[in-house]
Amino acid sequence: MKIYDWPTGPYPARVRIALTEKNLQSHVQFVKVDLLKGENKTPEFLAKNYAGTLPVLELDDGTFIAESTAITEYLDAFDGTPTLTGQTPREKGVIHMMNKRAELELLDPISVYFRHATPGLGPDIEVYQNSEWGFRQLDRAMRGMRYFDEVLRTQPFVAGEKFSMADITVIGGLIAAAFLKQQVPEECEALKAWYQRMQQRPSVKNQLEMSALPF
Amino acid sequence: MKIYDWPTGPYPARVRIALTEKNLQSHVQFVKVDLLKGENKTPEFLAKNYAGTLPVLELDDGTFIAESTAITEYLDAFDGTPTLTGQTPREKGVIHMMNKRAELELLDPISVYFRHATPGLGPDIEVYQNSEWGFRQLDRAMRGMRYFDEVLRTQPFVAGEKFSMADITVIGGLIAAAFLKQQVPEECEALKAWYQRMQQRPSVKNQLEMSALPF
Repeated sequence: MKIYDWPTGPYPARVRIALTEKNLQSHVQFVKVDLLKGENKTPEFLAKNYAGTLPVLELDDGTFIAESTAITEYLDAFDGTPTLTGQTPREKGVIHMMNKRAELELLDPISVYFRHATPGLGPDIEVYQNSEWGFRQLDRAMRGMRYFDEVLRTQPFVAGEKFSMADITVIGGLIAAAFLKQQVPEECEALKAWYQRMQQRPSVKNQLEMSALPF
Repeated sequence: MKIYDWPTGPYPARVRIALTEKNLQSHVQFVKVDLLKGENKTPEFLAKNYAGTLPVLELDDGTFIAESTAITEYLDAFDGTPTLTGQTPREKGVIHMMNKRAELELLDPISVYFRHATPGLGPDIEVYQNSEWGFRQLDRAMRGMRYFDEVLRTQPFVAGEKFSMADITVIGGLIAAAFLKQQVPEECEALKAWYQRMQQRPSVKNQLEMSALPF
């Protein structure tokens, strides 16, 4: 398999953490796509992924799978023993809900803030910006942090008693926030303590070291 | 189980179609939440679903599952034989990708257009609107229709050879578009032919009759 990505972004981080959690690193070859040069918006790349987003997984049969959640579903099913996306109906439902919520209330809005209310990827890439919308999304992401803090006051992981892809997506949100110097509010003790615990996982530790590199 | 929803919206339609495809109607009691009165934004309802969106599934053990994709995952796993979300790793990956793409490129943007660039749910509910953003999202949704038309020129269903939740999400997008009098472009023959075929499925036919009621 191949993964097309830009190694320091929060969405690629989600897939790289999932890959390491599943111990599948040796099955994958990485292909770097230069976001800052707009290589993800060329006709050649758009044929791989209509949305022009990263990462994209290419299977050995030539199938392309885009969208971090979809790639995680594939990787988690690969060995027949899902550990990140749930096994029972209830687990699957709750993990998918919390994963989507982590996208909607934290990772996606902070990414929209970056692209619309900061210089983003630079003037050649950010040809349309709506800063009012971008700042509203930052507010949403900060409310999202407070929500996840509430959740983590009563359970050890984002979707309950077990580590799952929902934790990975919140980690992606906090990687993006840190890059944009948006700190977790001081009073979000449970969220901060959870993030400390997450950083003890080798999959997350490696990724954070990589994400600390210049964007 | 209970489903809290507003029966004519496109997101509730997705879950109702999935429920009928899985033949689980008799397991569920519907509870109507009045969107136009903002009943989905009361503290009582926000405790069920942080995002205040509909639909929400309540399990018999009191667990709440929000987000249409997550509810569909639950319903599809309920009988142990998934038919909507994929069985092999490749099917799961492709279906989740196309489902997310149907949200990102069609259903979600047309919903944002409705809430931001039309009167939406009325002045009491739409207290913040960003019409420039809303109109851009309409453009995105119309491009999305052309994309799905391309896809459906070479395969019978949105995610390949089989009906899946990705078809249901595109149907949700077209229900929303029809409500807003945004027609599928004339030249999108494959998308229109697919939609005709979809309307022969009892699950979709029933839902469209219901969605034709006043919003």
